[in-house]
Amino acid sequence: MSLPEPDAGALFLAEIREQPQALRRLLEHEDEFARVGTAMRKHRQLVRMVGHGSSDNAATYGVYAFGVLAGLTALRDSIALSVYFGARRDVSGSTVLGLSQSGQTPDVVEYVRRARAGGALTVAITNDTSSELATAAEAVLPLAAGDERAIAATKTYLNQVAALALLAAHAGGDARAVADGIRRAADQLEASLPDLEARAQALALPFGFVGRMFVIGRGPEFATAREIALKLLETCRVAAWPMTATDLAHGPVAVLDPLFPVWAIAARDETLHAVQEAVARVHEFGSTIVASGDAAESIEGADFTLPVPEPSVPLLSPLLSVVPGQLFAWALARSKGFDPDRPRGLSKVTLAR
Amino acid sequence: MSLPEPDAGALFLAEIREQPQALRRLLEHEDEFARVGTAMRKHRQLVRMVGHGSSDNAATYGVYAFGVLAGLTALRDSIALSVYFGARRDVSGSTVLGLSQSGQTPDVVEYVRRARAGGALTVAITNDTSSELATAAEAVLPLAAGDERAIAATKTYLNQVAALALLAAHAGGDARAVADGIRRAADQLEASLPDLEARAQALALPFGFVGRMFVIGRGPEFATAREIALKLLETCRVAAWPMTATDLAHGPVAVLDPLFPVWAIAARDETLHAVQEAVARVHEFGSTIVASGDAAESIEGADFTLPVPEPSVPLLSPLLSVVPGQLFAWALARSKGFDPDRPRGLSKVTLAR
Repeated sequence: MSLPEPDAGALFLAEIREQPQALRRLLEHEDEFARVGTAMRKHRQLVRMVGHGSSDNAATYGVYAFGVLAGLTALRDSIALSVYFGARRDVSGSTVLGLSQSGQTPDVVEYVRRARAGGALTVAITNDTSSELATAAEAVLPLAAGDERAIAATKTYLNQVAALALLAAHAGGDARAVADGIRRAADQLEASLPDLEARAQALALPFGFVGRMFVIGRGPEFATAREIALKLLETCRVAAWPMTATDLAHGPVAVLDPLFPVWAIAARDETLHAVQEAVARVHEFGSTIVASGDAAESIEGADFTLPVPEPSVPLLSPLLSVVPGQLFAWALARSKGFDPDRPRGLSKVTLAR
Repeated sequence: MSLPEPDAGALFLAEIREQPQALRRLLEHEDEFARVGTAMRKHRQLVRMVGHGSSDNAATYGVYAFGVLAGLTALRDSIALSVYFGARRDVSGSTVLGLSQSGQTPDVVEYVRRARAGGALTVAITNDTSSELATAAEAVLPLAAGDERAIAATKTYLNQVAALALLAAHAGGDARAVADGIRRAADQLEASLPDLEARAQALALPFGFVGRMFVIGRGPEFATAREIALKLLETCRVAAWPMTATDLAHGPVAVLDPLFPVWAIAARDETLHAVQEAVARVHEFGSTIVASGDAAESIEGADFTLPVPEPSVPLLSPLLSVVPGQLFAWALARSKGFDPDRPRGLSKVTLAR
């Protein structure tokens, strides 16, 4: 614990606060999403998504967006299988979505190149529409998150989630409700940010010495669990692990004790009962429980709650539910004397293969 | 720390030791694998695998087995998307593999039922060929691991990996090298078990107070990383988290310090350079490094090594590389006074949804 530098995390916080505008900027490009979505409807049966870090977390959401909104099977494909093992799989009936903030991630670029040569419809989803990734792909969709300067991604992640929802809705044929829902989520987020900031800061204090955490969610909110855990790892040096509510019961629950808190993301959707059951099991081990999401209040026995507004389309809940986690990471890092803008040992563009 | 009960973990250790025989029992059923593999070759383009816990870890291996040996895209499909969200995806061109030791996992059974109604070729891979899962699926492949009594799976996991390799090889049209490789791996494992047991016990001593760990691997060995981490969570209450060598660099590396050891699984395959690069980064943070796998000796700066023999088919390396992790979990749990046969709060058949 130490007093934070006054401006530690200033970039990170500014980018969290900028998210409503970032979402609105994305919507200005809806025509481009409509064009690619239409192309996907023709003969493209499988959606292969590739990315690392936050981009891969967003892809976890994409599995649900394409499944629910377009009846399409989407998968986070193995990059190593294509790039290192040279597996010869037929990708000609697939749409490939390459996700990278910078558009420079080497093995994502290489995967997209190979998939394009193999006849896939390749799409780059990136903030930099003149990047290597954008050049490698047949089509480019701008994330339009704007310049992201904090090393840990926030607005880029949120716009990736929105981009996948919008593209899936267009691939499904009707995007009106989803586009409206994203616009509404931007407004809801803007209105609730001050309260969320205050709650996150209050929560950071008792968590100062926490070394290990689980973050659980299921369905579309598993993406949120992964992203919140990654923020805590990167900026707070907390060993936070994401887990589906169900997987927790298949072994990992045994590790819990009163010094091992669990953060549960509860959305008012078809998986809520699974999250509630998992939290009930966590209770038996005496763990402190944080509940967030639009159904946070329905989690019995939560020690802390960080509720968010309910979106007009249930599938869009991850646009709101990730924000308390981002703000908590910001506040906790500062309370530990870390600078969330510049996590130790990381750079903005990761070139690791 | 406390003195272990003399027979604590006796079942767990006996089942680890039984793995060579379990592999040989699986091979007695090769004809059945050949029949299903042949059926998969006809018009089945996508392989959807579903399971929880260790079964899901084995499915991670399946992605590589089907990709490399059969040129097929295999994915760990979302159970929630099908069972809870009722997403209407066309599964008629898919083979579905339901993985469950007991054959009783409720949502795996439900997923398989729905997939069969949707026209998929459904296959149950289970120890209990008269279970609910076996009844729900069109075809049944026996795991033949035999009665597994320790709560944490060992021989079932190993036979799941072997079963997926064997099925993938038959789906690809030529299984001779893989079947021979599994037989050879059983012999190699049998010969190296005494030495591995001694090394794992020696390693457990300095790890008595470790609370957090990363287990890294890439490609087929990511399955091994997931399985070793799960064993440590379940039996030793260590917050052990699996990660691909590449993902480590995309954020989580920031959490490392000298009290946060990293276990690296190195196989002599196309991903070795990625694991070596990741370990070099880990070094900068002063973490203690354990290297295992058939290329353990090629990891520079490892503090401890647990090498295993090289299989005759490189893709079969996970049959050997998981064993040092199983044995380490057994030894570490005992050195902490825990009983690895009966992890706290777990039961053999998990009915959680």
